[in-house]
Amino acid sequence: MNGSLRIGLAGLGTVGVEVAGRLLDGAVPGVTLTAVCARDKARERGLDLSAVRWVDQPVELAEAGDVDLVVELIGGTGAPAATLIETALAAGKSVVTANKALLADRAMQLAVVSEASGASLAYEAAVAGGIPVIKTLREALAGNKISRVSGILNGTCNFILSQMESSGVSFATALKDAQQRGFAEAEPDLDISGMDAAQKLALLAGLAFGVQPDVGQISVTGIEAITDQDISFADEFDSVIRLIAIAGETPDGLVQCVAPMLVGRDHALAQVKNELNAVALEASPVGQLFLQGPGAGGGATASAVLADIADLAQGFGRPIFGTDALSMEVAKTSDLPPQAWYLRLALADAPGSMASVTQVLAQSGVSIEEVVQRSRNADDTYLPVVFITHKVDAKHLRAALSSLANQDTIRNQVLALPVFEA
Amino acid sequence: MNGSLRIGLAGLGTVGVEVAGRLLDGAVPGVTLTAVCARDKARERGLDLSAVRWVDQPVELAEAGDVDLVVELIGGTGAPAATLIETALAAGKSVVTANKALLADRAMQLAVVSEASGASLAYEAAVAGGIPVIKTLREALAGNKISRVSGILNGTCNFILSQMESSGVSFATALKDAQQRGFAEAEPDLDISGMDAAQKLALLAGLAFGVQPDVGQISVTGIEAITDQDISFADEFDSVIRLIAIAGETPDGLVQCVAPMLVGRDHALAQVKNELNAVALEASPVGQLFLQGPGAGGGATASAVLADIADLAQGFGRPIFGTDALSMEVAKTSDLPPQAWYLRLALADAPGSMASVTQVLAQSGVSIEEVVQRSRNADDTYLPVVFITHKVDAKHLRAALSSLANQDTIRNQVLALPVFEA
Repeated sequence: MNGSLRIGLAGLGTVGVEVAGRLLDGAVPGVTLTAVCARDKARERGLDLSAVRWVDQPVELAEAGDVDLVVELIGGTGAPAATLIETALAAGKSVVTANKALLADRAMQLAVVSEASGASLAYEAAVAGGIPVIKTLREALAGNKISRVSGILNGTCNFILSQMESSGVSFATALKDAQQRGFAEAEPDLDISGMDAAQKLALLAGLAFGVQPDVGQISVTGIEAITDQDISFADEFDSVIRLIAIAGETPDGLVQCVAPMLVGRDHALAQVKNELNAVALEASPVGQLFLQGPGAGGGATASAVLADIADLAQGFGRPIFGTDALSMEVAKTSDLPPQAWYLRLALADAPGSMASVTQVLAQSGVSIEEVVQRSRNADDTYLPVVFITHKVDAKHLRAALSSLANQDTIRNQVLALPVFEA
Repeated sequence: MNGSLRIGLAGLGTVGVEVAGRLLDGAVPGVTLTAVCARDKARERGLDLSAVRWVDQPVELAEAGDVDLVVELIGGTGAPAATLIETALAAGKSVVTANKALLADRAMQLAVVSEASGASLAYEAAVAGGIPVIKTLREALAGNKISRVSGILNGTCNFILSQMESSGVSFATALKDAQQRGFAEAEPDLDISGMDAAQKLALLAGLAFGVQPDVGQISVTGIEAITDQDISFADEFDSVIRLIAIAGETPDGLVQCVAPMLVGRDHALAQVKNELNAVALEASPVGQLFLQGPGAGGGATASAVLADIADLAQGFGRPIFGTDALSMEVAKTSDLPPQAWYLRLALADAPGSMASVTQVLAQSGVSIEEVVQRSRNADDTYLPVVFITHKVDAKHLRAALSSLANQDTIRNQVLALPVFEA
C-alpha cells in the first residue's frame, strides 16, 4: 500500500465528481484515487482524471490490484452496485457507499460478508446526507441506551411541506416548484410516498436498537394527501406538518413509523425548513440531541463519503450496525402507542352530521380534545372539520376510522395524522 | 490486558458517579473499571465499588499496574488533575478528561507528551457536554475545510438570557433563579464573564483551524451588562440575545470572539433555550451543520466520557487536534470583519442630544440602519435609544464608541453588541 490507501470510485454523478475532485485535491490525507468507473468516459466533468486509471466495469474495481477501498456511488439496488459491493467485501476490500436503497434491502447479507472477510462497509452518506447521524449513533452514543430516533430524512418532502407552509400553495404547486429547483425527481414517488425515508429509518433502527433493518416492518404513509387546508389547520394548533420517521422503544416492542405528523411549532423538528434534514435522538444518559443539516446534494453527500474514507484510511472501520450482524434480531414490532391524532374530514353541512360523527368517535373510545370547523364559502355542501383527539390506542383509532368510512355525512376519506410527541 | 481495557477513574462527583455506574453496568463492552480515586472514601454515592480498588492519590492511577486508561474527572487546572494527566500520558496510558479549563491552558504541552508516548488524550466531554462536537469536527468533517464555528457553549449564560426573554426578569433575578435550579454556580464569574465559553472556543478553534488554542487571543465579553431592556429592544428587531462564541476565517486572519450578540429569531441558535448548548458549523463541501444538546450535567457529560472510552477501547485514538501538535501554528488573529452592531445608550432628554450623537456616529463612519427610542416614564431625564448600524469596521466602531464616551448627553457607557450574521 506504500502507506497510501488506494481508492477505486464507481459512479461519477454529482456526488462522485465532488468526491473525486476533493480526493485529487488531497482533502483526505493518506489516500490516493487510483481508479474510476462511470458510464460515459468521454463526458466533460471538470475533473483532471489523467492520473487515474479508467475501468469499464464497476466490478473490476473490486478485483483490481491497485484498489484497496471501493467507493460505490452508482446507486440502484440491482446488479452493478450490489455486485461491486459484495465482490469487494468478499475480497477483503472495505466499501464506502451512499446507497440507502441497496443497504435497506441487503444490509444483513452484506454485514455477514463484511464480518467474514474483515472488510468494513461504511455508509454515513446513506442517511441524512451531511449530518453525521451514523457516527453519532454508533460512536458518540456508544455508552448510551437509545430510546427514540425521530427524523426528517427526506428533503423533497420537507421542501414541499415547507413551501406549502410559507407560500400557502397546493401540494401540486409545491411539488412542481421542488422539481424545478432540483429538490424533487421527475418521478418523485419514492420520496413523496415516504419510502425513501423508510429505507433510511430501517438503517437507523438497526444502529439504534440492534434489530435487522426491514422496511417491511415500517408503517409508511406519504405526504400526497396533505392539502394546503391541513397546513393552515395545523397552524391553528400552533403546529406544522412534517414527514417524520420514528423508531422508538415501547413496552410492547419497537415502533417504526414514517408519516406526516403534526409537530408543535416550538419543537426543533418544526423549525427544519426547506430541503434540510434533521434527527432528534433520545438516549440515556445523554438526554436529547438534535442534529440538522443538508440531507442531499453533491457537497453534503461527498462530505459524508470523505469522512468514511478518512476513518477507513486510519484503520478505524466499525461493524455495520456497531455489533455482530449475527446477533441482530428481527424487531418485535409494536403498534403506535396511545397518542393524540389530527383527524380531518369533509362533513356534510346538514343538521345532525356533527352529532353523528362525534357519536361514532365516542363509540370507538376516541375522545376529542379540540375541534375546528370552517365555513369559507356559502355554497359548500361539505365543510372541513378537524378534530384533535386525546390519546387513543391505534386499535381504537382504526376502528373509529373504519366506522366513519361508512358515514354518508362524510365525503371522501378521513385524513388521520399522528400528533408528534416531544 | 486480558482483552479488557482496565480503567482508573479519578473524581467521583456527579459526572464521575454516573460514569462509574455505567461502566460497572457494562455500558461499554471490553472495559473494566479497576480503580477509583476521590477525596472522601466514606461518602455514600449509591455505587457498589466493592470490586474496584480504591487509591488515595490520583497520580497513583497513572502509575498503577492494573490501569490501562485514566479518566480524569477531578477538574481544576492545578496539580492533582494536571499531574495525573501528564504522568499517565508520559507512561503511555491514554486519558479521557472533561477538563476544558486545564486543556485550554495546557493542551499544546499535553499534545506533545501524548504524541511522544503514543497515548491518546480524549476530551469530547470538555466542550458542549453531550453534543459530539469534537467527533464531528475531527472525524465527520475530516474531508471538509471549516470556515466558521459558532456556538452557544455556556449553559448558565443561555439559561439566564432565556429566562430574561421568557419571563421579562432582570439579569440579577435570572441569575438567582439559575443558581437555585443548579444551572449556575454560587460563584458564577467564570460563566457569566464568558471565560468558560472562551476556554471551549479555544479548543474548537484548535480543532477546526489547526491553530494553537489560546484564550488570550479571544476577545471575550460577558453577559453582565445585558438588561431586560436589551432583551426587549432585541425583540423589536425580531432577535434575541445569546452569548455566542465564534471562531471564523476572514481574509485578515482568524476571528475569535465570545460576546452577547443579537441573533435573528429565525436562526437555529436563537431557538436554543434554557441550559442547552449548540454549535453551528460552516464547512465546505458539507455546507451548514447544526448540533444541539445538553451542555452540562452528569448524564450529558458522562455520555461524552463513555464515547471516548469506547473509542479508545477499540483502539481508535486520534491526535488531540486531529493533526501533529508540532505543526500547529499560533493563530493570526483578526479583528471582527465589518458587520452590523446594536448600540444601546441612555440619551439626555434634551433638544439636540440625538443630533449630537448621530453626528458623532457619522463622523466616525458609522451609518445607522435603524433607530428605536422609547419614552416610558414622563420623569426620565435620560431615554434609552438603540441604533442598529450598517456594516462597519470594528476600528471605526471603536472610534465612535470612544467619541461617544465624551458626550455629556449620554449617561453611562454605550452597550455595543455584534449582530450575528447567519
